[in-house]
Amino acid sequence: MVDLVCGLDLGGTKLLALVADPADVGASEPVAVIKVPRPASDVVAGLAETARTVIEQAEAAAPGRRVTAVGLGAPGLVDRSGVLRYGANLPGVVDLALADELADGLGLPVVVDNDATCAGWAEHERGAARGCNHSITITLGTGIGAGLTVKGEVLRGAHGYAGEPGHMVVDPAGPECRCGRFGCWEQFASGSALGRFGREAVAAGQGVAVLAAAGGTLDDVRGEHVVAAARVGDADARAVMGQFAWWVALGIANLVNVLDSEVVVIGGGLVEAGDLLLEPVRRCYHELLMGADHREVVPIVAATLGERAGAWGAALLAAARVPD
Amino acid sequence: MVDLVCGLDLGGTKLLALVADPADVGASEPVAVIKVPRPASDVVAGLAETARTVIEQAEAAAPGRRVTAVGLGAPGLVDRSGVLRYGANLPGVVDLALADELADGLGLPVVVDNDATCAGWAEHERGAARGCNHSITITLGTGIGAGLTVKGEVLRGAHGYAGEPGHMVVDPAGPECRCGRFGCWEQFASGSALGRFGREAVAAGQGVAVLAAAGGTLDDVRGEHVVAAARVGDADARAVMGQFAWWVALGIANLVNVLDSEVVVIGGGLVEAGDLLLEPVRRCYHELLMGADHREVVPIVAATLGERAGAWGAALLAAARVPD
Repeated sequence: MVDLVCGLDLGGTKLLALVADPADVGASEPVAVIKVPRPASDVVAGLAETARTVIEQAEAAAPGRRVTAVGLGAPGLVDRSGVLRYGANLPGVVDLALADELADGLGLPVVVDNDATCAGWAEHERGAARGCNHSITITLGTGIGAGLTVKGEVLRGAHGYAGEPGHMVVDPAGPECRCGRFGCWEQFASGSALGRFGREAVAAGQGVAVLAAAGGTLDDVRGEHVVAAARVGDADARAVMGQFAWWVALGIANLVNVLDSEVVVIGGGLVEAGDLLLEPVRRCYHELLMGADHREVVPIVAATLGERAGAWGAALLAAARVPD
Repeated sequence: MVDLVCGLDLGGTKLLALVADPADVGASEPVAVIKVPRPASDVVAGLAETARTVIEQAEAAAPGRRVTAVGLGAPGLVDRSGVLRYGANLPGVVDLALADELADGLGLPVVVDNDATCAGWAEHERGAARGCNHSITITLGTGIGAGLTVKGEVLRGAHGYAGEPGHMVVDPAGPECRCGRFGCWEQFASGSALGRFGREAVAAGQGVAVLAAAGGTLDDVRGEHVVAAARVGDADARAVMGQFAWWVALGIANLVNVLDSEVVVIGGGLVEAGDLLLEPVRRCYHELLMGADHREVVPIVAATLGERAGAWGAALLAAARVPD
């Protein structure tokens, strides 16, 4: 029987851990929450230590209650037994039995899923995709992740690896990707890509305000600086946002052509841009979707659970997997 | 209660109609089968006439048995109530209530799905994807269609439009597609695309055997001529097949990155090429799939139900939808 549940989200640079009552996920503050840098070397030991800390804090704050399950969202290909097979973002980590090793370390049942799968599940259950059986949640950050639902259930695919649209090739002549291929969608539609577009604009003499937002150094220009300059109305920055939005929309249209979802939720760091991003994405999406004039409009909306979505989703998936 | 069932497949140029016992689909000859040119003008009237003919033939051949349901596979976006909303291949046909109009005309229950969805369902139930819960069947013909299954069920998506990977944009600088966009996958990986690659090779002086297979006229070169020249070992034709296979593999890798299926089935006219096509596709796919060295190999195999797959699948879907 589930009492409290712990959710962990292993990100590119940080590890977020929280404990909550599953019924409260997304609706109120967690019983405890901590954010630490991502473990530098021994990933399992670092995860276990952070989990223990947040569990102790939660059990102290809620006397008489116990954490009975742990969920973890991890970046990369996580198989159905909770083994992290491969992550383009985690150099050197291959075939790591995260679920088993963490369960041994914590003495609790542990379930592991892809981090974006967790975030998408949280948005489906408690966030922007609530009530939509067929949903696509895309997280735009350093890379691109996706959490998919079909008929109201998580789409994990045959082995657990479903939901990696960031590695759809959308322009074979495009830049080399971390995964070794060329022209993957995340080379055009991630936060990193927006930064590159910003630097290209600056280098072409069309990014004075973007450069200023980054403190005057070309190499420091990141996606957030483009967003900041666009927000105050800079035309060059808005042009970069438009270029970027076209690529975001292209991948979304590709996904809707394949999956025909009811809603597309955009999460990850770039969701901060709000309608500066979403409005041009919606326009371009309509141009890029096959037969768009003859089908129902699919809303493209901002995620509502913020940076905790992955940990919330991991907690929910763990709670659902523990026998009553 | 289902007795016999009629399956119709409305193709780009022809209409195939058959009647069978649902238990025998894919395993033995239909009770009756006919193939006629696609109705030139009134699609519904043409479908009804052909259905009546094949039903009469079947009921004459199997005295005492009755056709109790009709399934139709139609090219394009078919919504969940059997309305053909849009088909890039059917100019002028928009919002045609195929299921209702055909049911009125025939006095039988009619279900309508996308044609490739039907073919994929037949391969899943009785063909090359049998036993695989998560499957992708791709039909390579004039365009590209797809039939997807998730957890052993048809993936129709929220509205019925799932499975249109032919309109994934895979190279925005590519040729204009029938759908109005540029660089859709079917511009590179359909039978029509193989013909274009063949004509380009001939025009560049690298297709003597291909041109000969087409009877010596450049404009007559089609995909089948490239396949024919490759089959007898022509190096230029094999190079064209390699170029084409790379694009086929690219789209398959994109789909597996998103869906993580257990098997990919290739159907449609180009399946005739056999291993001339499948072997280079498998090699290129491995290069194009994210993390391919760290995940289970997904077999890429030829469809086994041939040109009747769509009609077989429509028949099965109709049989499954009729109440016992």
